[in-house]
Amino acid sequence: MEKLQRNERIAALLKVLSDNPNKIYTLGQFTEMFGTAKSTLSEDIDIVQKLLEKFQFGTIETISGASGGIRYFPIMGDADVKETVDELIRDLSKKERIVPGGFLYMLDLIYSPEMVSKIARIFARAFYNKNVDYVLTMETKGIPLAFMTAKYLNIPLIIVRHSNEATDGASVNINYVSGSSRKIQTMVLPLRALKRNSNIIFIDDFMKGGGTANGIAEIAKEFDCQLVGTAVLVETAEPAKKLIDNFFSILTLYGVDDVNMAIDIRPSL
Amino acid sequence: MEKLQRNERIAALLKVLSDNPNKIYTLGQFTEMFGTAKSTLSEDIDIVQKLLEKFQFGTIETISGASGGIRYFPIMGDADVKETVDELIRDLSKKERIVPGGFLYMLDLIYSPEMVSKIARIFARAFYNKNVDYVLTMETKGIPLAFMTAKYLNIPLIIVRHSNEATDGASVNINYVSGSSRKIQTMVLPLRALKRNSNIIFIDDFMKGGGTANGIAEIAKEFDCQLVGTAVLVETAEPAKKLIDNFFSILTLYGVDDVNMAIDIRPSL
Repeated sequence: MEKLQRNERIAALLKVLSDNPNKIYTLGQFTEMFGTAKSTLSEDIDIVQKLLEKFQFGTIETISGASGGIRYFPIMGDADVKETVDELIRDLSKKERIVPGGFLYMLDLIYSPEMVSKIARIFARAFYNKNVDYVLTMETKGIPLAFMTAKYLNIPLIIVRHSNEATDGASVNINYVSGSSRKIQTMVLPLRALKRNSNIIFIDDFMKGGGTANGIAEIAKEFDCQLVGTAVLVETAEPAKKLIDNFFSILTLYGVDDVNMAIDIRPSL
Repeated sequence: MEKLQRNERIAALLKVLSDNPNKIYTLGQFTEMFGTAKSTLSEDIDIVQKLLEKFQFGTIETISGASGGIRYFPIMGDADVKETVDELIRDLSKKERIVPGGFLYMLDLIYSPEMVSKIARIFARAFYNKNVDYVLTMETKGIPLAFMTAKYLNIPLIIVRHSNEATDGASVNINYVSGSSRKIQTMVLPLRALKRNSNIIFIDDFMKGGGTANGIAEIAKEFDCQLVGTAVLVETAEPAKKLIDNFFSILTLYGVDDVNMAIDIRPSL
């Protein structure tokens, strides 16, 4: 490759870091990639760091020591968090979202790549530098949110399912009780999915009673793992007391009135 | 914001385009964002375009006319496609992946953000400029691959499910026959999920008989939509004749021998 100009190096550096959030790169990997000296690269990194701050694109962390290097956290700035929350509230308050029975249709939002990316950045910023090993979710609707959170944290996603498939091999099955309907359901996780003694977080689109989150904590224990955090897009105001304590939500749903066609949803943060 | 240097503009330009693949930006949006003249921005775009080519990061397309602008396709270069396929074959040929019954454990790969991103870039490069409106998948295991493909194409993901939830509202249900086991299953799609007369593609992790893909084509018809393409990570060599024709796979699985502990998997491309 021909020698790169500074502006090319800087753009390529930001591109590689940005496509691989939370991944540690040694300086040697970049000096080789760009055919440049370490001192020049350090200047490049400083320029990228300043740029990230200017645009609230996130931050670069320097890790010192033998296994040191740099990594990029795409931490969303407070202004962008607020803008995203406002956008969500505006969109989720639309009357046409009301489904008979007093439910709120959200599938278009929680499957939208653009919106999922924004929400996942809000989730992820709570867990950088927290030594999380896995993101868990319960099939199905929270999977895109959980996957993008895992991508921003650069850790594996694990999908807990309602039943086992032959291709998954031996599995651990537990029964758990839904926090709101009190219905007993099954949770299945392949034995080889999760390493012992790991820290996991649970990501989902919706929490009512917290039964699923509680089930995830239970199944994690069977693998000698700890549930160290939970984040959901929407929690319901009622029941106020959930089956788990250690969680946060972005929005709180106070009610959907399908007679008067009114939705009451507010920021939780 | 203080005035930006050229190297900052170029890096920020690439960052914004790269975080939002396949999204059309007008030049005005960038001249405003960077406080710069159109002629200067055009030079910046040329530099970014050359850089993308050098690193095989993808390409920028210029759309002329009143609603014109630029958009970024993260098209994976042929060398990177080959490297990804080689990596997959190496990894999927490991004996410890064999599950009793002659199955191949793949969950860690198809839930890994890094690997899913690479595979989705291979899927997506077949569908840029093909006027695709939605990516569909059938729950559960193909969801991460389908979501990332949707993200690279900047179009909505839709997850087809086995049963309906109250929160989804009215839905269309069809029965379909699995191509390999001949078992009858149900496919459900909320009525409001899909706009009439859309072009859809189907993304999944695995295809044996092609029954699911065929079912997706059937349910699409109920919405007056057309299935214009299908891509799967792995197809099985047998049956050679699938229920659908218009699809491609990245890998072909010839056999898993759980007695002699041997896996025969080869590139399809």
